[in-house]
Amino acid sequence: MPGVKKPFALSCGDPAGIGPEIICKTWRQRDSFDCSPFFVAGNSGDFDGLYDVPVIKISDPAEAKDAFDKALPILHIYDGEIARPGEPTLDGAQCALHSLEIASGLARSGDAGAVITAPVSKSQLYKVGFRYPGQTEFVSERCGIARENAVMMLGGPSLRVIPMTTHIPLKDVPGQLTHALIIARTKSAAKAMTRNFGIESPRIAIAGLNPHAGENGNLGDEEKLVMQPAIDELLEQGLDVMGPLPADTMFHAEARSHYDIALCPYHDQALIPLKTLHFFDGVNMTLGLPIVRTSPDHGTAFDIAGKNVADPRSMIAAIEMAATAVAHREIYDN
Amino acid sequence: MPGVKKPFALSCGDPAGIGPEIICKTWRQRDSFDCSPFFVAGNSGDFDGLYDVPVIKISDPAEAKDAFDKALPILHIYDGEIARPGEPTLDGAQCALHSLEIASGLARSGDAGAVITAPVSKSQLYKVGFRYPGQTEFVSERCGIARENAVMMLGGPSLRVIPMTTHIPLKDVPGQLTHALIIARTKSAAKAMTRNFGIESPRIAIAGLNPHAGENGNLGDEEKLVMQPAIDELLEQGLDVMGPLPADTMFHAEARSHYDIALCPYHDQALIPLKTLHFFDGVNMTLGLPIVRTSPDHGTAFDIAGKNVADPRSMIAAIEMAATAVAHREIYDN
Repeated sequence: MPGVKKPFALSCGDPAGIGPEIICKTWRQRDSFDCSPFFVAGNSGDFDGLYDVPVIKISDPAEAKDAFDKALPILHIYDGEIARPGEPTLDGAQCALHSLEIASGLARSGDAGAVITAPVSKSQLYKVGFRYPGQTEFVSERCGIARENAVMMLGGPSLRVIPMTTHIPLKDVPGQLTHALIIARTKSAAKAMTRNFGIESPRIAIAGLNPHAGENGNLGDEEKLVMQPAIDELLEQGLDVMGPLPADTMFHAEARSHYDIALCPYHDQALIPLKTLHFFDGVNMTLGLPIVRTSPDHGTAFDIAGKNVADPRSMIAAIEMAATAVAHREIYDN
Repeated sequence: MPGVKKPFALSCGDPAGIGPEIICKTWRQRDSFDCSPFFVAGNSGDFDGLYDVPVIKISDPAEAKDAFDKALPILHIYDGEIARPGEPTLDGAQCALHSLEIASGLARSGDAGAVITAPVSKSQLYKVGFRYPGQTEFVSERCGIARENAVMMLGGPSLRVIPMTTHIPLKDVPGQLTHALIIARTKSAAKAMTRNFGIESPRIAIAGLNPHAGENGNLGDEEKLVMQPAIDELLEQGLDVMGPLPADTMFHAEARSHYDIALCPYHDQALIPLKTLHFFDGVNMTLGLPIVRTSPDHGTAFDIAGKNVADPRSMIAAIEMAATAVAHREIYDN
């Protein structure tokens, strides 16, 4: 695969959370994995002297690659107070928002090869004018993609999942699981498996909504009325789709070997198996964007910030997955 | 712990399924685990010569213990055609039903120490007059326990779960998750952890209904309106209850170390993590009964019956869990 040309842009996330810590730890471990050079968009004061990591201020992403071996490159984009771990402030939220804006903008312009977003606090961001359900929707709209076409995928070494509905009350799920949604999400998944992971004929498993996938209509009729017709249409179009499958028996190791990605009607159906298996190395990737965007699959963890106990594995996995996607897009997007 | 006094009664399940095969394989492996002597209630013809296992007909459960070392003891309770693997018949369904009736009756009378039920086909049983949602309800009613008080628990070596609602459409879950149900299921779980597993102060985790346990009411209000008040009441009564917890982050190894059993509002929330982790060694135990009843956590698997590929680990685990429960009940029920 061709080498990664451009450095990756990391947003710093809420600087009072574990973002700076996991970024520093990732840089320290850069020789222990196939680490693409990266830089952080943030307040350099939040990184100075943190965990004995040397930092170097850069003024252009192009400087990051040469600097990366010697120090953590910081694109200093915010002059503000230095964050105190575990004590989020409005100033820190401003910094997080600036960082997200600039890191994703640099990926969009091509100056960065991908954007990897560290965790933010949505409730803090809402206080400084953020008006999106999450970073996913922000990045997608900055890319000119309608938020309903940006798809959240979670992936770990042994499982990739897409929740077809996401952050809505459980009682609203049956009504939102439409024919059009199933078609759109499945096509998005199929395309993403090829351009990000090089899987040319992706095998897609779709979980039923109800227990035992409705047990032939005895435990709910959405499988018969909504899901099967959508799956039939996808099969007619030549996609390799299985389902609706009973959700409880599709995530053990042998079952997982039969598909490349699982689509689930709702949040917990997808995220329970993913986080049961890959709590420390799961990655959140946004599908359907012109840029590569990944994110560690955890929050700001204000309660443990600054205690040197945060685990960088999810951030490392996010950088690795971004590199995989960049390499495959060079082949499949061109 | 005092020794197990009475042999365990195994129902044969549908004789065209994998029941006879996993029972024979379990008997062959009897020296590789702490195997309580057992006998099978069934048609001895279904076991004769199967997988080179010697069988011995007994006419009373009391004969089983002496016979067990030398041969698989069969309480021959049904004269019918010999089943052909993978080809279920009405005669086989009759045999399965008789077997279930007699094996559970012997546990009820005290002639058997526990009943372990091999898998049946509900659709086949319905053709021969069975009128219960499943074996759990049949056994509970035979024990004089109202079916709504018989509680399904699934357990494996690293996780025990109870789905508070079970085989109902997903859209009916929010309406059925009542204050009274949460209280009843949690108390049942607490009592069962002590009398079956010897855990005197069980730690109980309760999953929220909605994604992120409702995220403070933003993703659904059942946590605030229904679940928290029930949990508060349980805490006031001295139970060690945590929740409502975000379901997706409560099943990784570190999270599981903080509780003895997890209660979930609905089927897939409980069974996805259980079967992801313990597909081959999960056990179904019915709580709230005067007798000990366990079952392997899988179906008849007609598609692989007779091919010598069925895995007996779940049956072995079911016998081991029954022995654990019998031993603890000698202490805690008296």
